[in-house]
Amino acid sequence: MSTTIPTRIVIAPSGFKESLSPEEVCQSVSRGVRRVLPGAVVSELPLVDGGEGSAATMARATGGELVAARVTGPVGRPVTSHLARLGGASKGTWLIEMAAAAGLRLVPADVRDPGATTTRGVGELIAVALDAGARRIIIGCGDSGTCDGGAGALVALGARLLDARGGELEPTGSNLARVERIDTSGMDPRLAGTEILVAGNMHNLLTGERGVARVFGPQKGATPEQVEALDAGLAHWAGLLAGAFPEQVAGRDLLTGPGTGASGGLGAGLAAGTGAQLLSRFEVFMDAERCGMDVDGLIAQADLVLTAEGAVDFQTPRGKIPAEVARRAKRAGKPVIALAGTIGRGAADVHAAGIDAVAGMIPAPMDLGEAVDRAEELLADATERTLRLVLLGAAMAA
Amino acid sequence: MSTTIPTRIVIAPSGFKESLSPEEVCQSVSRGVRRVLPGAVVSELPLVDGGEGSAATMARATGGELVAARVTGPVGRPVTSHLARLGGASKGTWLIEMAAAAGLRLVPADVRDPGATTTRGVGELIAVALDAGARRIIIGCGDSGTCDGGAGALVALGARLLDARGGELEPTGSNLARVERIDTSGMDPRLAGTEILVAGNMHNLLTGERGVARVFGPQKGATPEQVEALDAGLAHWAGLLAGAFPEQVAGRDLLTGPGTGASGGLGAGLAAGTGAQLLSRFEVFMDAERCGMDVDGLIAQADLVLTAEGAVDFQTPRGKIPAEVARRAKRAGKPVIALAGTIGRGAADVHAAGIDAVAGMIPAPMDLGEAVDRAEELLADATERTLRLVLLGAAMAA
Repeated sequence: MSTTIPTRIVIAPSGFKESLSPEEVCQSVSRGVRRVLPGAVVSELPLVDGGEGSAATMARATGGELVAARVTGPVGRPVTSHLARLGGASKGTWLIEMAAAAGLRLVPADVRDPGATTTRGVGELIAVALDAGARRIIIGCGDSGTCDGGAGALVALGARLLDARGGELEPTGSNLARVERIDTSGMDPRLAGTEILVAGNMHNLLTGERGVARVFGPQKGATPEQVEALDAGLAHWAGLLAGAFPEQVAGRDLLTGPGTGASGGLGAGLAAGTGAQLLSRFEVFMDAERCGMDVDGLIAQADLVLTAEGAVDFQTPRGKIPAEVARRAKRAGKPVIALAGTIGRGAADVHAAGIDAVAGMIPAPMDLGEAVDRAEELLADATERTLRLVLLGAAMAA
Repeated sequence: MSTTIPTRIVIAPSGFKESLSPEEVCQSVSRGVRRVLPGAVVSELPLVDGGEGSAATMARATGGELVAARVTGPVGRPVTSHLARLGGASKGTWLIEMAAAAGLRLVPADVRDPGATTTRGVGELIAVALDAGARRIIIGCGDSGTCDGGAGALVALGARLLDARGGELEPTGSNLARVERIDTSGMDPRLAGTEILVAGNMHNLLTGERGVARVFGPQKGATPEQVEALDAGLAHWAGLLAGAFPEQVAGRDLLTGPGTGASGGLGAGLAAGTGAQLLSRFEVFMDAERCGMDVDGLIAQADLVLTAEGAVDFQTPRGKIPAEVARRAKRAGKPVIALAGTIGRGAADVHAAGIDAVAGMIPAPMDLGEAVDRAEELLADATERTLRLVLLGAAMAA
């Protein structure tokens, strides 16, 4: 069998939720590759999308550190959170994973009320980064449990929300409709000198039919009536933001601009209140300069791209990491294989998204617990089997 | 992606025990192949090894028929059994699956005593084939529940087993030691004009350290003492056979000759009593002339060989169908992929046996029942994924 190709392999996976971090996926896949192609040049790119686990992964991947911080949780009670000081070429950049301070997982199931939750802790984490002298702060969105339009974050950074009688309001989704005025006089002055990037999903809009209240409210626990109220509150809030931060809002559409709805409207709030740029998460997390993840550069030199995801299914082409990796690989004309913890309904749809082939890792009937426990071993074995098939095809063509 | 190769594909699988027949495996694999390579020339060779299900598969594969017959079961009670009249180029050949008349599955768990069971029903099935004018009778071994040296089969065909006082003995393993003489005067005269082939495992010997009593007695329910008694009884029986059938035994080693131990010594009994040839099961069931399964001929024309087995594991290289298919394919220099219902311990050992790559079919955590219920769909999907990997490799090399 020919073992002359492929010799340059890029491993660019997502983590496997509840099972393997992106780095662990890289390590297992790499182990499988080396069993079949011991001489291959293997590059590992542990990829994140800004959701849970992103800060820890990026801290390790860049040689930075994960810093713990006690902040206000989404339901007002203190939680132990964290943020990442990135290292290497990304020194001076801090990464905040909004879910670590205001994630749905931090909202107890019996108080799932998106009108009552707050992003205050996200603002507190931003303050931690400012205190540490951050030159750039990246806010990773995803897995949020809030719908406050970023009001909480702004309050933590010095804003005051005042009602018609001048009373101060708690920064929650339900309270947005009652805000008459935002007092910006106490806003942290350091924000002006700091680059803030909100890395979210550009399809998430603040209001309207495709607004966050309608699209995500129900899964965060909102009733149909509450969805309407939250949507109206967010629209009202956008108007107040435009008035309070005229320079930063100038020329921007806070209501339906791309990414304004990220993390329950945190995108709109930070865009207005901190002048944050709203960027596609992949423009940030797959960017060499911003995060040290030179996805395009390494793909350009690769013979084969291996991506991976905990579940490859109909959702994969809809904005998941393997689909973005495949999009970039196809742009460069490179072959892409997606390794899957599990292969689900609609997995065949991924070929249209540029993934040439999918390989599963479950060798035999087993329950999810066993698959999770044995994931590192199973993934390495699956990678080995996968490469043997590729090499067999190559040998047949040679 | 290049889709010019492979264009000629041979599908040569085993059945998946308790799940899919070899024909069903062929159909599912073929379905998966056609999704990726709609223009491929696909040959299907549903393969058997002589064990359970072999007669039904070969009847269908050759366009023959499965014939039901009521015979004596292994513990003496009547059972409904069957044998196959082969069709097509194999017309005149009948296939008997010994397990259908004397298999371990027909021995109730509470009477698992290999000293008490009999192959009488196998002889009765041979008589059915003789009555139907068979020119050749193949006896498929495997999955047996007996250890009677084929005594039962010979009694059913007219032999009488006599003790020291001239009394007639039942043909069971425990009784072999008590037989003083075999009366052959009543043997069916049609046996002389009929070619009988015992298709077994050539590693199974009648007696000694590697004899059937020692190797298979315990799993058939024998105690250590009984193993010794059965082994001694089989050795004694071989001496009697040599005396009773001198012409047919001349030059043959009934004690430790290859295949003499097939199905609890049925090999030795039929070799002596009917002049049967003892052949490797694969020399019979993968033979174009004997069974219509032109394995070598089709492999010679193939670009790719797909074999399959319910479980690919450490046992696969030890005489399982995929290993034999791979051996023949390697002799012809053809690539081989083994599709696996489940991938078990030691599966990596199969590469040394000529299987170039292994692919599993389980897409996600599930229990065995679901895997069995969905086996046809899962196998087709797995075949599709597997071929996509092979074609990707081919495109990369092209």
